[in-house]
Amino acid sequence: MINVGIMGATGYAGEELIDILLRHPGVRITHLSAKIDKPQAIADIFPRFKGKIDLICKEPNIEEAIAKCDLVFLALPHTVSMEVAPSLLKAGKKVIDLSADYRLKDIKIYEQFYKTKHKDKTHIAQAVYGLPELYRVKIKEARLIANPGCYPTVSILALAPLVALDLVDLGSIIIDAKSGVTGAGRKITEDFLFSEIDEDFKAYKVNIHQHIPEINQELSKLSGKKINVTFVPHLLPLNRGILATIYVKKAQNLKRKAQNLLSLYKKFYKKEPFVRIREEGDFPRLKDVVGTNFCDINIKDGQGNIIIVAAIDNLLKGASAQAVQNMNIMYKFPESTAL
Amino acid sequence: MINVGIMGATGYAGEELIDILLRHPGVRITHLSAKIDKPQAIADIFPRFKGKIDLICKEPNIEEAIAKCDLVFLALPHTVSMEVAPSLLKAGKKVIDLSADYRLKDIKIYEQFYKTKHKDKTHIAQAVYGLPELYRVKIKEARLIANPGCYPTVSILALAPLVALDLVDLGSIIIDAKSGVTGAGRKITEDFLFSEIDEDFKAYKVNIHQHIPEINQELSKLSGKKINVTFVPHLLPLNRGILATIYVKKAQNLKRKAQNLLSLYKKFYKKEPFVRIREEGDFPRLKDVVGTNFCDINIKDGQGNIIIVAAIDNLLKGASAQAVQNMNIMYKFPESTAL
Amino acid sequence: MINVGIMGATGYAGEELIDILLRHPGVRITHLSAKIDKPQAIADIFPRFKGKIDLICKEPNIEEAIAKCDLVFLALPHTVSMEVAPSLLKAGKKVIDLSADYRLKDIKIYEQFYKTKHKDKTHIAQAVYGLPELYRVKIKEARLIANPGCYPTVSILALAPLVALDLVDLGSIIIDAKSGVTGAGRKITEDFLFSEIDEDFKAYKVNIHQHIPEINQELSKLSGKKINVTFVPHLLPLNRGILATIYVKKAQNLKRKAQNLLSLYKKFYKKEPFVRIREEGDFPRLKDVVGTNFCDINIKDGQGNIIIVAAIDNLLKGASAQAVQNMNIMYKFPESTAL
Amino acid sequence: MINVGIMGATGYAGEELIDILLRHPGVRITHLSAKIDKPQAIADIFPRFKGKIDLICKEPNIEEAIAKCDLVFLALPHTVSMEVAPSLLKAGKKVIDLSADYRLKDIKIYEQFYKTKHKDKTHIAQAVYGLPELYRVKIKEARLIANPGCYPTVSILALAPLVALDLVDLGSIIIDAKSGVTGAGRKITEDFLFSEIDEDFKAYKVNIHQHIPEINQELSKLSGKKINVTFVPHLLPLNRGILATIYVKKAQNLKRKAQNLLSLYKKFYKKEPFVRIREEGDFPRLKDVVGTNFCDINIKDGQGNIIIVAAIDNLLKGASAQAVQNMNIMYKFPESTAL
Repeated sequence: MINVGIMGATGYAGEELIDILLRHPGVRITHLSAKIDKPQAIADIFPRFKGKIDLICKEPNIEEAIAKCDLVFLALPHTVSMEVAPSLLKAGKKVIDLSADYRLKDIKIYEQFYKTKHKDKTHIAQAVYGLPELYRVKIKEARLIANPGCYPTVSILALAPLVALDLVDLGSIIIDAKSGVTGAGRKITEDFLFSEIDEDFKAYKVNIHQHIPEINQELSKLSGKKINVTFVPHLLPLNRGILATIYVKKAQNLKRKAQNLLSLYKKFYKKEPFVRIREEGDFPRLKDVVGTNFCDINIKDGQGNIIIVAAIDNLLKGASAQAVQNMNIMYKFPESTAL
Repeated sequence: MINVGIMGATGYAGEELIDILLRHPGVRITHLSAKIDKPQAIADIFPRFKGKIDLICKEPNIEEAIAKCDLVFLALPHTVSMEVAPSLLKAGKKVIDLSADYRLKDIKIYEQFYKTKHKDKTHIAQAVYGLPELYRVKIKEARLIANPGCYPTVSILALAPLVALDLVDLGSIIIDAKSGVTGAGRKITEDFLFSEIDEDFKAYKVNIHQHIPEINQELSKLSGKKINVTFVPHLLPLNRGILATIYVKKAQNLKRKAQNLLSLYKKFYKKEPFVRIREEGDFPRLKDVVGTNFCDINIKDGQGNIIIVAAIDNLLKGASAQAVQNMNIMYKFPESTAL
Repeated sequence: MINVGIMGATGYAGEELIDILLRHPGVRITHLSAKIDKPQAIADIFPRFKGKIDLICKEPNIEEAIAKCDLVFLALPHTVSMEVAPSLLKAGKKVIDLSADYRLKDIKIYEQFYKTKHKDKTHIAQAVYGLPELYRVKIKEARLIANPGCYPTVSILALAPLVALDLVDLGSIIIDAKSGVTGAGRKITEDFLFSEIDEDFKAYKVNIHQHIPEINQELSKLSGKKINVTFVPHLLPLNRGILATIYVKKAQNLKRKAQNLLSLYKKFYKKEPFVRIREEGDFPRLKDVVGTNFCDINIKDGQGNIIIVAAIDNLLKGASAQAVQNMNIMYKFPESTAL
Repeated sequence: MINVGIMGATGYAGEELIDILLRHPGVRITHLSAKIDKPQAIADIFPRFKGKIDLICKEPNIEEAIAKCDLVFLALPHTVSMEVAPSLLKAGKKVIDLSADYRLKDIKIYEQFYKTKHKDKTHIAQAVYGLPELYRVKIKEARLIANPGCYPTVSILALAPLVALDLVDLGSIIIDAKSGVTGAGRKITEDFLFSEIDEDFKAYKVNIHQHIPEINQELSKLSGKKINVTFVPHLLPLNRGILATIYVKKAQNLKRKAQNLLSLYKKFYKKEPFVRIREEGDFPRLKDVVGTNFCDINIKDGQGNIIIVAAIDNLLKGASAQAVQNMNIMYKFPESTAL
């Protein structure tokens, strides 16, 4: 039985973490904190947890986190995680960080996209990018997990087989992504008011989104060559889920000898408990993945282009459930426990 | 004052036509028909028209349509329009057909995509494709208008300047389109139940949608070369609007001498009352076009790709308002009348 | 041709006022102001107005409003209207105030429900409550209109015939009201975030809403006796529309001689252009009134209770369109002009 | 370990039953049937169950159900349940029927409201109404459970303390209920199309809904006197959840000596694991109960009226989770198992 804490417990990701961890037979939640006015029972903040957990959510307090936890989840905004992670790590605690602070290996790119100085260069190198499908072995030994972003999770999983096997024109990758509103966190701005989003749909941060370097970094690592994707995110008038439609051109070696791409994907992800390759013509939809840790993928071999459609729940496989999947791997629980 | 009729008055497009024509000072609605069980006041079918129109909607009756109308709008399902248009035309009436029956010049392609024999080959040649931005001169003299599909309207307007000026790699066009639910008409199937669509999002007819040959035909005509686009439509959980995100690679002549694409678009559409080119960085959203006849467009010059975002109201610029725009041109009303 | 201004032009009600007034053949919009950072073209703030109006929206400036307008619409938050109305009235301008500041005749009740001192007691007495169905004659001569609240509009219209004709137990009136989100204005608080409202539904301000004294005042005036209604508002996950379901017990004189309540309602509202009494069993729904100035009503004679269902568009009959209806009456335009 | 079957496995209630039972450590799903064209893996019908269950869903087959199950859930339309329940019961199986067929003790009323002859009068008397909060003792011994309707569950739980303790005017009960769309089951009719419901709200079956006699029966039983409630259901544009706002007048004995109604409710439901009485002023909302088996209630003592607001998930406490709660009681599992 391990003791876990959540810093940033009142955001969307924090709420989902509590929900999942309460179902987990191998952990006990022993610490909850968030930027709040005064300590408050978490079951008062989220009435759905009434009768299931007695803990008080307090203001952030590293000493208490250290005293009470073996592992701490950081469900904090980026730039805040890197202020608390060093103390936790120094005290020998394990850390799973859901923010972007430890994902990018190149600090310059981090500082350019997140418009702030990085304050903990020391731990970037040892942070393991928490995508189990690519880094399971390293995750087992990790002390600091950089839990992937939601768009990168679905984009990388959708492209990994083609990129790893060198089947596509690396300069041709276009990712047209559509996300539900919780993807932006609980931001109180005019843009996220109900009346601004209901019955509307729009593109935003067109080809300048901060998740682009994260996707580029991981795909480049897989390929061994530098990759720059074209990435356009859109905002859907619904709460949860990301669906990405991805277009790539075939590489010469794929043009020469045709392959059944579906079979290839099924083989690549054969042992993965949370990646489902759908049957021919049966494309993913949000309904089938929302509320789950699955990433559903289908792929179609068009005349010139390959078209890939992939979907996840942005708060689960795209954040909190993937974080627990990482924890399960780190602590040798069966990987699907509580998921 | 001209007398107009609507066949198919009870569908979404028919309802919008009534709404627009009631505001039009130069027309009188004299005939409404639809596939209904028994004649019924249109104001009982659509309570929003109570006090504004007294007409009874009857079962289809060509003789009455001929007797009472100068112009007939066919807001009918495809394959039904081509059964009634010939008689109307023979009687000297003008016809604006909102179905797909007269849009495709190549009958074989029509028959392949709509899975039915074409029954009126005679009139295909004389039908004018009713996109005023491309065919205004011909529309003035037309007796039969093939009113464009919703996806083709937004896609062709978004691409016309680049394709007409030969600035892009014609083999690279990718259209990722997202439509509200009314785009499919009032179909009573499980797929369109509220609980199937609410909080869901999905791709459908991936690269096999029947609007593809229509887009290909018109872009090829503009370019003088054969174009095959990649086209993936998606279903949004909202009522009205289409937003298309389009990706193209630059042609060599564009790479050689850089151009300001926004200026180029503004110039191309300078005199168009219903195409609005947005300012740099200000991408279209559905809210700004829903309820209007506008097509809003923005274009971004990425590293390798050009990204175009365009939006219309699928029932207005994508159907009924564009039909009235065509009527205004045919009858020399000011083009924006009632729009 | 009259010159009109709108103070508070960037809220939901202001936006709708612009939309309606642009269609009105007898007025010219000459002044727009709002609490904004710097002057901005209204067509940039609301792209739907592009090409339709050139005016700059400025910070509030009474002198300019006085110089440029015959009539000023105040689409301001309550407590702000009473700061500007006196100067406008003193300068001989007519004022239609969409806030609550001049609706309640009893200052103590205003101060209790709106938790602020009233600053313009002078003009309360001469303000005419702008519900044309009850006060048309006074509106013709009014210089200051207190435009009714959205809940009061639908509630009073639904109950007026029964209360005026003394047919119900005055102590038994229960109003269960459900409103779309725009009813609250463009408030930027956590409560109105998309993710808080989507797929949710709740009651709020249970029997303590500030519209209660307004309903009580008007029904009491109609009845000649003091009335206290029970009123519970609810928040619907949609943009526009209010539907109220109202329950009342019959008075003795109604029990004694049965009456056809539908006929009675039809007679009562016979000459009203914007009240529609539906047929037996055909209850109002939001779809039929949203986008219109109509109030739709049906009434059912239950065993013990009478059940009334009534619906309006909260931004139109419940705010801006009713304001224009009042203007039409004041300036002797046909009452439905632009509506 | 008990073997359970579900007849009607492909409806909304059936799908939820599978989801809950898959989490239940004491049961094994051994039989699934539904009206389908040909046998199909349930994980193909509902992709969310992929990897969790291998069973084939077949056409209804009583013999197989008898051979494979100890207990059968009937998630069938009313009138179909009473055709299969008798054989199951005769074979010694236990039955939990989610339809209305065994809820009403008075056959005449059943036949009037459901417009069909009842075919199994024999078992009506022995059927136990499966509302654990009222009938837990009888449920323990039951062989046939009539699982309550969704509107009756929330209405009866909201009113039980007041009615049982004789504190209210029994002739004054008004229930204004609002339900999400899944409440109607997966009906393929125009009324339930997305475009008919999105952004709309309406009352339906005003005071004639078939759940009225069920509410009347149970409240009358609690009170010992005949009760006729006024009941108006409304359709919310969202998937799941029912919120009821209830109005009652105080009885004389309550007027005489004031009581704290909240305390009284808390005491009444003290030992109930799935009824939560909220604190003063904190009214239930759908978000807090959707996805759970809870019924949340608050009560406010108004001047003349008492106002009660109560909420449940219509598919869980209003159907499938309550059915499993009943099973847990029948088989002596801890009552909250899997809930």
